[in-house]
Amino acid sequence: MQGMSKRHAFDAAIALQPQGGGLFQGATSPAYANMIGPFGGITAAQVLHAVMVHPHRQGVPVALTVNYAAAVADGRFVVHAHPVRTNRSTQHWMIELRQQDHVVITGTALTALRRQTWGGHEITMPQVPRPDQVPEASGRIGSAWIERYEWRMIEGGVPQVWDGRGQDASVTRLWVRDQPPRPLDFEALASLSDVFFPRIWLRRATIVPVGTVTLTIYFHADEQTLAQAGTGYVLGQSRGSGMRNGYFDEQAHLWSESGELLVTTHQMIYYKE
Amino acid sequence: MQGMSKRHAFDAAIALQPQGGGLFQGATSPAYANMIGPFGGITAAQVLHAVMVHPHRQGVPVALTVNYAAAVADGRFVVHAHPVRTNRSTQHWMIELRQQDHVVITGTALTALRRQTWGGHEITMPQVPRPDQVPEASGRIGSAWIERYEWRMIEGGVPQVWDGRGQDASVTRLWVRDQPPRPLDFEALASLSDVFFPRIWLRRATIVPVGTVTLTIYFHADEQTLAQAGTGYVLGQSRGSGMRNGYFDEQAHLWSESGELLVTTHQMIYYKE
Repeated sequence: MQGMSKRHAFDAAIALQPQGGGLFQGATSPAYANMIGPFGGITAAQVLHAVMVHPHRQGVPVALTVNYAAAVADGRFVVHAHPVRTNRSTQHWMIELRQQDHVVITGTALTALRRQTWGGHEITMPQVPRPDQVPEASGRIGSAWIERYEWRMIEGGVPQVWDGRGQDASVTRLWVRDQPPRPLDFEALASLSDVFFPRIWLRRATIVPVGTVTLTIYFHADEQTLAQAGTGYVLGQSRGSGMRNGYFDEQAHLWSESGELLVTTHQMIYYKE
Repeated sequence: MQGMSKRHAFDAAIALQPQGGGLFQGATSPAYANMIGPFGGITAAQVLHAVMVHPHRQGVPVALTVNYAAAVADGRFVVHAHPVRTNRSTQHWMIELRQQDHVVITGTALTALRRQTWGGHEITMPQVPRPDQVPEASGRIGSAWIERYEWRMIEGGVPQVWDGRGQDASVTRLWVRDQPPRPLDFEALASLSDVFFPRIWLRRATIVPVGTVTLTIYFHADEQTLAQAGTGYVLGQSRGSGMRNGYFDEQAHLWSESGELLVTTHQMIYYKE
C-alpha cells in the first residue's frame, strides 16, 4: 500500500541519496522555496538529515550549528557529514554542503546517547490560547515554504502597515505545524527553528533585506518527547536582543502542544539598511 | 622598553606559533587550568585567536561556535583554521584543534566587514549597582583560572550551602574583568562568555559533574565598541532554560561598563546525576 500514499513534501525535500564515504546527494525543493533560494529551515533539516541517515551515527541530536556561507542555488547539492570524534556517549560531526565544488553551508552537530536523569525546565511555556482558539492565518506573503506550514499567530505578527513606525520589542508567539500534519522528528524541529520572520521587520516596520548567516539549535527533545508530541502543534516564541552595524540576533523556544520544551535556538542575521 | 613589561597571562595563554597552511601550534596554560583540563573560555579564545592571526582573515568576528569534543589534555595542541568561503563582506571558517592527531575541539566562525547601520538593542543592561558598589569576591573555589578574573557578584552566586535545596530560577548577574585589567578584544570576549558557573548548581545546590559540549558566541561588539570598553568591567547575566536527560542550556549577555551590548552567548552542557 505504501506506493499509494503520497510522500509528504517535507520528506521529499530532505531526501538524500547516499554516495558512500559520508557523501549524500540532495536537491533544493521548489515546495520550500523562499524569496531568494530555499527557506533556511529546510536547509538546516537537509544537513541534519545527512547526520541522521549516516550509517555511523550514534545517538540523537543534542546540538546543531548551520552556517549559511553563501546563497543555496536551486538544484542539486552534495552534503558531506563526517563524524570527527566518537566517544562513549557523544559524537561530534562536521558538515559541509557543496554546490559545484564550492562550500555553501558549513555546520557542526553533536549527537548523544541520552539517559534518564533529573530534569527541570526554567523557561516554561507562556500562557496562551489553545491552537483551536487562534484563527488560522491566511493571505500570507508569497513564498512557497510558508504554504508548507499552518500558522496560528498569537502575537507579534508581521506588521500590518509598513510605515517605518516600528516597535521597541519584537516578541512573536505562534502555533505552527506542518501542513498537512506530519509526526515531529529532529529534522522537523530543525526546520521549525527558522520559521520566525526577521525581528528587525517588527522593530522597523520596513522590509529590510536580511539573511540568516548562522543558526544554532539545542534539542531538549529526545525520541520519547517527539513521539508524545506527534502531529500536534508547536508553540514558538521568538525575540531579538541586539541589532548593530549589519547584524542582529534572535532567540526562540519551541514547545510541544502539551508544554514540553523541545528546542532552544539562536541565529545571527545580516541586515542591510 | 617592551622587554621589561611582563606579558599578561591571557596573552601568554592564547599565543600561537604559525606553522603555515593555517596551522598554529599552542599549548594549554596552567594559569587558566580548571578542575580537569583547561577553562573552556580560554580554549574558545585560543581557537578564535587562530582566526584572528590568520593571514587571510577578512573582517572581525560576528559568530563563533566551539564544540568540546573531548577533554583537552595539558600540553601542546595544533589548531587548524581554514577560511572555507570568502565573500565580499563575509568569511566563513572551519576550525579544528588536535592533540596527537585526535580531534579535540571543532568549531566554525564568521568574520565580516561591518559597516555603520541603524541599530537598536532590545535587551538592555539590567539596573544594577556600579562595580565599586559591589564587594570583590574572595575565597573562591580553587581552580587557577578563577584567579585570572576579578569578580563582583551582584546576584545568583554559587550556593553558600550545598544542601540539595536548589532554586527554581538560575539568574546570575556579576561584574567581571581580567585580573590584572587588560583591554577587551574579541578573544577576551570569547573567554568571558564562559565565566558563568553551571546553572544546574544553582538549581540543585549540589555539585553535579558537568562539562560544556558546545558554545556559541554572537559578537555585537566591533572594534569601536571594544576600544570604548577598554579595561572596564563587563556585566554578565546568565540563565538556563531547559534541563533534561543529561543536557541543559544556558544563555548569557555581556555588556560593557557603560551599557553597550557586547555579546549574546549560549551553551549546551552535559550533566551527570
